[in-house]
Parts: sequence; C-alpha cells; structure tokens
Amino acid sequence: MFKKILYPTDFSDVSLKAMDYILRMKDSGTQEVVIMHVIDRREFEHFEQGIAWVGELPADLEERFLLNATREASKKLQIIAAELTNMGFSVEIKLETGIPFNEIIKAEKEEGVSAIAVGSHGKSNVKEMFLGSVSEKVIRKSKKPVLVIKR
Amino acid sequence: MFKKILYPTDFSDVSLKAMDYILRMKDSGTQEVVIMHVIDRREFEHFEQGIAWVGELPADLEERFLLNATREASKKLQIIAAELTNMGFSVEIKLETGIPFNEIIKAEKEEGVSAIAVGSHGKSNVKEMFLGSVSEKVIRKSKKPVLVIKR
Repeated sequence: MFKKILYPTDFSDVSLKAMDYILRMKDSGTQEVVIMHVIDRREFEHFEQGIAWVGELPADLEERFLLNATREASKKLQIIAAELTNMGFSVEIKLETGIPFNEIIKAEKEEGVSAIAVGSHGKSNVKEMFLGSVSEKVIRKSKKPVLVIKR
Repeated sequence: MFKKILYPTDFSDVSLKAMDYILRMKDSGTQEVVIMHVIDRREFEHFEQGIAWVGELPADLEERFLLNATREASKKLQIIAAELTNMGFSVEIKLETGIPFNEIIKAEKEEGVSAIAVGSHGKSNVKEMFLGSVSEKVIRKSKKPVLVIKR
C-alpha cells in the first residue's frame, strides 16, 4: 500500500513503537523506509544570545553541543537502520538540523514518500501541551497519509 | 496488519478518499470494517431553545429533522457498505446520534478495532479552524493507531 515510508523519530518511546507497525507493513508492499531525525535548532539558540560559559565563546559552545547531538543521533539512527535492513527493507538515513516539523514536511516532498509514520507524542510533553506536538503539525501540513501511532 | 478497522465518515470528500486506502489494506490482512456515521446532536439543539417554526412544537420539529438525517445517512452508509462487501470485507454499519468524536472513541473501545481510518478534515471547515477538527480530537483520544488521509 505504501511503497516508501518516511519515519521521523525523536527516539521517544512512542516514536520507537512505530517501528512495530513499519515492520508489519512489509506484507502490504512497503519496500523503502527513510528514517529521519531532526536536531531542534532552537535548543541551541540561547547560546547565540551572548551567554559565554566556562570561558568558551558562544559560537564554539554551540558547535560543540551540535557535534555531540549529531553523534548521539547518528548512533541511534544506525541501530534503527540495521534493524530495518535485517527485516529486508531498503533504508535511507536523514539527519537534519532545523525546526523539526518544517524539515519533515520538506523531506516528504523531496523524498517522494507515499506515507509518513509518526508517534503521537514526542519527548517534550509539557511544551507540546501548549504548542501542539510536532506530530500534529506534520498531520496538518503533510500531503500524504499519516499513520499515527499512539502511546 | 490491522484486522478490524473503524472507519468514521461524515461523507465529506476527504473522508470518502479514505475508502481507497481501506480497499488497499486487504492485502495486509484487514478483514473487517466498521463504517460509522455520527449525527451531530448539537445541530438540533437550537430547536430545544423554544423556537417554534411553522406551528410545530420544537420537539416535533427536532424529531422530524433527526428522522430525515437518519434516513439520509443510512442510505449513504448502505452504499459504502455495498462497495466494501463487494471487495470481500466483512462489514458492520454503526449509525449514532451524539457528539461525533465522543461516539467514535466509544466505538473504538466497544468494537475492539485494531486501527481507525479518518479523513484529515470534515465538512465544517470554518468551525474546525477554531475548534479543532473531529479527526484531531480522535487522534488525541484514541488508543489505537490512526491512519489520517489528507485532502
């Protein structure tokens, strides 16, 4: 049914639960999975407001944090990719820095996917209560069907 | 993947588009579809505020409108049911009166479905912009995965 799936993950529990459903989608013709993580650029923005810690320049500090986040995410994406590859999927990894839902909608277009599989909630529960979750924004803005996995 | 699907519809275009995806879910093991329509009780509530038109008692008027809405919905549900039956699904029709998202969540529990398939928007576009769509409420409150079909 959905040949190529975009699977954005923030590595939260509910997001990883989506894996179970992706694995089962093989029988209905899913062949390719684009595993995506977006490092939220806004989490580093306070460094740009001129706060220098431990003698470092804000720009250096930001770069170091970003490098760490990239390494961490990269490791987790590899693990997911290995699991999906073992199940016989063709896999692509996409690691971006930006505003998560924007990057996800951009990827939907660029990758020409046939559906998106997301967890209903991400990690930042309290923030999401007030601002709406990344998933809700993705559901609103996407063009393709979205499979929403619940906690 | 999803053995029994709850398919709530308000007969809007995007809601009927969900049919295409349900039809294709047969290959992945979907056997049963519960087609559901909820007549929004609130649309009749102004009759209860004591406005009597054309010499009728509000209660009579309400009953007549409800009867009409039930007949109309029933016809449309039959057409959808026939189409799904022809495709080899086992089909159940559920016509309720109440507040749509409440009834849908109630049906999810009672019917023991494995997923819900909904259109992203219903008929009442302007109202939904302010209040959030029925689908968004279903996505928030459901326990099972929700496949959201886009316009």
